[in-house]
Amino acid sequence: MSERMVVIGGDAAGMSAASQARRLRQAEELEIVVFERGHFTSYSACGIPYWVGGDVDDRDDLIARTPEEHRARGIDLRLRTEVVEIDVPGRRVRARDLETGAQSWTGYDKLVIATGATPIRPPLPGIDAAGVHGVQTLDDGQALIDTLESIEGRRAVVVGAGYIGVEMAEALITRGYDVTMINRGAEPMATLDPDMGVLIRKAMEGMGIRVIGGTEVTAVRTDDAGRVRAVATADDEYPADVVVFGIGVRPATDLARAAGLPLGAYGGLLTDLAMRVRGHENIWAGGDCVEVLDLVSGSERHIPLGTHANKHGQIIGSGVGGDYATFPGVVGTAVSKVCDLEVARTGLREKEARAVGLQFVTVVIESTSRSGYFPGTSLMTVKMIAERRTGRLLGVQIVGREGAGKRIDIAAVALTTRMTVEQMVALDLGYAPPFSPVWDPVLVAARKAVAAVRKDCRG
Amino acid sequence: MSERMVVIGGDAAGMSAASQARRLRQAEELEIVVFERGHFTSYSACGIPYWVGGDVDDRDDLIARTPEEHRARGIDLRLRTEVVEIDVPGRRVRARDLETGAQSWTGYDKLVIATGATPIRPPLPGIDAAGVHGVQTLDDGQALIDTLESIEGRRAVVVGAGYIGVEMAEALITRGYDVTMINRGAEPMATLDPDMGVLIRKAMEGMGIRVIGGTEVTAVRTDDAGRVRAVATADDEYPADVVVFGIGVRPATDLARAAGLPLGAYGGLLTDLAMRVRGHENIWAGGDCVEVLDLVSGSERHIPLGTHANKHGQIIGSGVGGDYATFPGVVGTAVSKVCDLEVARTGLREKEARAVGLQFVTVVIESTSRSGYFPGTSLMTVKMIAERRTGRLLGVQIVGREGAGKRIDIAAVALTTRMTVEQMVALDLGYAPPFSPVWDPVLVAARKAVAAVRKDCRG
Repeated sequence: MSERMVVIGGDAAGMSAASQARRLRQAEELEIVVFERGHFTSYSACGIPYWVGGDVDDRDDLIARTPEEHRARGIDLRLRTEVVEIDVPGRRVRARDLETGAQSWTGYDKLVIATGATPIRPPLPGIDAAGVHGVQTLDDGQALIDTLESIEGRRAVVVGAGYIGVEMAEALITRGYDVTMINRGAEPMATLDPDMGVLIRKAMEGMGIRVIGGTEVTAVRTDDAGRVRAVATADDEYPADVVVFGIGVRPATDLARAAGLPLGAYGGLLTDLAMRVRGHENIWAGGDCVEVLDLVSGSERHIPLGTHANKHGQIIGSGVGGDYATFPGVVGTAVSKVCDLEVARTGLREKEARAVGLQFVTVVIESTSRSGYFPGTSLMTVKMIAERRTGRLLGVQIVGREGAGKRIDIAAVALTTRMTVEQMVALDLGYAPPFSPVWDPVLVAARKAVAAVRKDCRG
Repeated sequence: MSERMVVIGGDAAGMSAASQARRLRQAEELEIVVFERGHFTSYSACGIPYWVGGDVDDRDDLIARTPEEHRARGIDLRLRTEVVEIDVPGRRVRARDLETGAQSWTGYDKLVIATGATPIRPPLPGIDAAGVHGVQTLDDGQALIDTLESIEGRRAVVVGAGYIGVEMAEALITRGYDVTMINRGAEPMATLDPDMGVLIRKAMEGMGIRVIGGTEVTAVRTDDAGRVRAVATADDEYPADVVVFGIGVRPATDLARAAGLPLGAYGGLLTDLAMRVRGHENIWAGGDCVEVLDLVSGSERHIPLGTHANKHGQIIGSGVGGDYATFPGVVGTAVSKVCDLEVARTGLREKEARAVGLQFVTVVIESTSRSGYFPGTSLMTVKMIAERRTGRLLGVQIVGREGAGKRIDIAAVALTTRMTVEQMVALDLGYAPPFSPVWDPVLVAARKAVAAVRKDCRG
């Protein structure tokens, strides 16, 4: 007897789920229907800034698998078709063809919600003006590139200084724009503590990017033709020929909310460990529309990242296909490149640790990426946060040059397995002069953290 | 009441121990005497190939702390002085001044044995000929450089294809020598499985190094002046103006053996977790002269590496100084650079796993260092070994280009905490297009290993 799997959303989580389910169940056993609002499937949204910046030549390079490839594998993929209602008791979804406007119901035995996230757009005057862009989807990226290729002016304003904002600022300066980045926080990258964020600001300023922190955009000014001409803050106005908003995203869960499915504090769908929507045996959800368990703080967070979405899809597809897999949670690892700086973090920032009732000691060290005498060695700053008394690792932030970023993985594994900083000191990490000083910078930080925990115990 | 700490050997382990003890105990409380046979202290032996190859300009760059600096910190350092006897019941050592030949006894309350390792030199005809070198100590490195600067010929033979042999072959070809590397094993780098070693051989051959595997050197041929002129194997003869032996080292424990101290199967001193020689409350040992517990196999191994020696020294110095620290063991991590290849390993090779009674599945995957579409991405081969049934990670080997090597640290932490490959699949590792594909190569290998473990269970 054939079942039908319906997937809402055809990017990382949705298409991974569909593909994995197809691997496990043949077309006679499982019909798979995917509804995707946009023109593309299975693309790397994280790659959009690099496409805009010119590191990636072609939009199609960002597409891991085309609609045709999915269809060839027996997936009934319906592009430009938006699901507008989920009827949970009736086990069906209502979809609208965005070209014709026609609507129809499709029944499901197993439903996967992979609706992603929606860029936050504050309800400011002028926010919908021509020349104002987001970069959430490949369609968004294409629209921005079309704008860049059609305008004469070279003044760009980026609003927001998270990963996307920072990467877009760099992409635009690489394209020859005069770039101003406006950020609510005092320093860029609120995913880092401000004392680490300052290192990012300095690097960006060194590249010629104007970084305006501690202020909010109050309006987008337009010209008579309705095109953006400036961005206003409480105190100032910044001329702009193009504006990119990157002030974060929220889970795209209006559909789920209307269907009465359980949402968390951040508006994301809540799932169990097998990525099934809580209380619903035949509905799964994954990717940027769900909240994930933070293993360090023990609470749910919303962390929209392609790497999680892919894992979710894999697990959902296994579940739908009758196999078994779970997603135990995250530790909050992220890595990024800003100019020639590598920026990485995992676990909790000071503020996040305080917010969940943890008390901690903090250390910051400077070390080098290679043996001090080895050519190409460069400075690296490592910040480490450890719990008072227990010495359990709570978080690490790293800013440095080549070789700095992926060192965060050491801490990511240590957090996952709840190591103490004292246990970390003994870690048998790879050492050779081209790769590390004899004490890896992460171990140098751990040693200092051990001393801080002990000092705090005595104090 | 003042005590005396005597340290035998003034490199990484010995001087780290002395320095850490001095940090904890002032000169009035603890007198520290260090005997060192050579001319140098606290140098990076791992850096010698890079000095020979010209990446490091100056010998002094390899010295972390000079004798004068140690003396200024209240350490009584006696260079060119060799300890020739340890009198355990009498708590004293007999030392010989290598310049004058004078001998004298020095009493100790606390003894630290950090005598390092001795290069293996098979008793071949001609092995002591002029032009035949090892590269264990900074004195050895200087002697080799003196030879290179004094000879006319450009033919070099490197015997042995471990880390040192491979690094020296590269250093010599960089200096413009015609290099032949002769190795007993079929492929270079016996610390890897042969299927990974073949990747190293190909890279070396690509650089113009002649790699002769599966054969042993039977004699060093000399000319009338007693200088090397060729290296002979059973089948052939290789002309040589200079020969470097890098066929491994053994713990330098003749002194310890004569004193009746406990040695393990590899001839290294056996210690407890606090690095005290077993059965001896007031004698510590660390660095290349000890055996270490391999946490994966559960047995002792001899792993001469600067990073372990530094940790040992730190722990010994803490113990001597009245503080507390332990060395839980190693997982066998090592990383190296060969031409533009990064080579890394941790845990057990197939042969090592079999030798300790483990049964396992093995997977090999190829992935990329960055997102496939990102500039500068390169191929990486990851081999992963997991225990049958339990799926516990047993070992990882990685060969790739930039960004490959230090990924081994992910596996090193996972081995330390005894993760299964299934647990590893869920690891929250750093992802962004310049750093990794959306599934990190280590996770790709883990996924395949999970499938292999399951298939084996069913089979």
